Amino acid sequence: MLELLQNRRTIRQYSEKEIPEALLRQLLLTACRASTTGNMQLYSIVVTREDAMKKRLSPAHFNQLSVVSAPIVLTFCADFNRFIKWCELNQATPGYDNFQSFFTAAIDALLVAEQFSVAAESQGLGICYLGTTTYNCDQIIDILQLPKFVVPITTLTVGYPKLLPEQVDRLPYEAVVHDERYHDYTADQISSLYGYKENLSENKQYIEENGKQTLAQVFTDVRYTKENNEHFSKVLLDTIKRQGFQF
Amino acid sequence: MLELLQNRRTIRQYSEKEIPEALLRQLLLTACRASTTGNMQLYSIVVTREDAMKKRLSPAHFNQLSVVSAPIVLTFCADFNRFIKWCELNQATPGYDNFQSFFTAAIDALLVAEQFSVAAESQGLGICYLGTTTYNCDQIIDILQLPKFVVPITTLTVGYPKLLPEQVDRLPYEAVVHDERYHDYTADQISSLYGYKENLSENKQYIEENGKQTLAQVFTDVRYTKENNEHFSKVLLDTIKRQGFQF
Repeated sequence: MLELLQNRRTIRQYSEKEIPEALLRQLLLTACRASTTGNMQLYSIVVTREDAMKKRLSPAHFNQLSVVSAPIVLTFCADFNRFIKWCELNQATPGYDNFQSFFTAAIDALLVAEQFSVAAESQGLGICYLGTTTYNCDQIIDILQLPKFVVPITTLTVGYPKLLPEQVDRLPYEAVVHDERYHDYTADQISSLYGYKENLSENKQYIEENGKQTLAQVFTDVRYTKENNEHFSKVLLDTIKRQGFQF
Repeated sequence: MLELLQNRRTIRQYSEKEIPEALLRQLLLTACRASTTGNMQLYSIVVTREDAMKKRLSPAHFNQLSVVSAPIVLTFCADFNRFIKWCELNQATPGYDNFQSFFTAAIDALLVAEQFSVAAESQGLGICYLGTTTYNCDQIIDILQLPKFVVPITTLTVGYPKLLPEQVDRLPYEAVVHDERYHDYTADQISSLYGYKENLSENKQYIEENGKQTLAQVFTDVRYTKENNEHFSKVLLDTIKRQGFQF
């Protein structure tokens, strides 16, 4: 079991093999056993199987190939709509139109997504998270017809692996774990902790392909730019508010 | 493996048995194999073992007993500090002082927390999530000395179970899974989906103990009140901004 978790890798290319409906249902039920705030289950999961819907979602995910090629796409949403409706039907006055409530529901949605991932991988499936979900959350809301108090948080593409890619690197233990208090990093520590990553031949090639001098520049100048981050910050903030969470 | 995930339950009471250091290290390394945005690993995990530190953290978690009684408390933080420092040391200009970047790091932190939970449970440990982390994030920042661009997102108490509580209920599949599009709930559907929960004897007792008429009122009037949600929304928003993410 630990081995399964340790050997996992993101799968972006899927075989033709379909996911049986009964298996998907079992995996989704298993996912819902993840911890949830006050047992409120402040999430919904939208299952996309239809090709037409995958094609409509694809641009919102910058046409990443896994969206149209995966047998299943799952959009995990923070959902206070269902809970608020339940309150209103039970002489209870909900006070959930605020940022903390949105964030609580987002946590719930992410724990379910990760428990789903582990469950799916234990059955030989592969998954890929799409971080684009919070970038183009406004488009996804329109496509999936998400009502007020529902915000898409993350998306998984799911399918049987076509091939098993190499496992990518991770920072050493000392980079991410702190004993008792946060121990901030010196310049020397940063260089040492990121040294292995910087010296990987695939990363050196990556720098060259992008015409940059350092690996960090590929992130700041190409992959996650200030301009994009600021644009998509505005989209996300506006969308959270538009869906009813005021702040 | 599916059975493990399906049978899981939150553990709030722990035995005296210590968690071996080697096991904790292995579990944390396993957790770091969770998916992470662009392989940036935008999180840090602070391990609390010392009694004095548990006592300091306890009020931030409203003195929930599991904080002082668990052998280990883990605080999972969204962390752009390390990555920004790396950029600055590599002639790269980071553009990560914004809301989307904060949210991306929060997602990373939550996926690691959930992968840790599953790994720990596979080894016979039990965990409890503390939603209070985003309520009193300002206090936790002071106690754990979290620098700019680091925000605590969730906390796990971890230990060997003292006893195995009954598994709590979950909403039926149809309540949380939507086919192709979000299908909003009618009043009848809400009543039906929440019927099982409302009729549980422990929930009926819970209503009575709290002097309420409906289960929903226990949530809106006692457990997650509008007043508290609004207060802690302000704390969380102010804290995210104070830590350097501007919006």
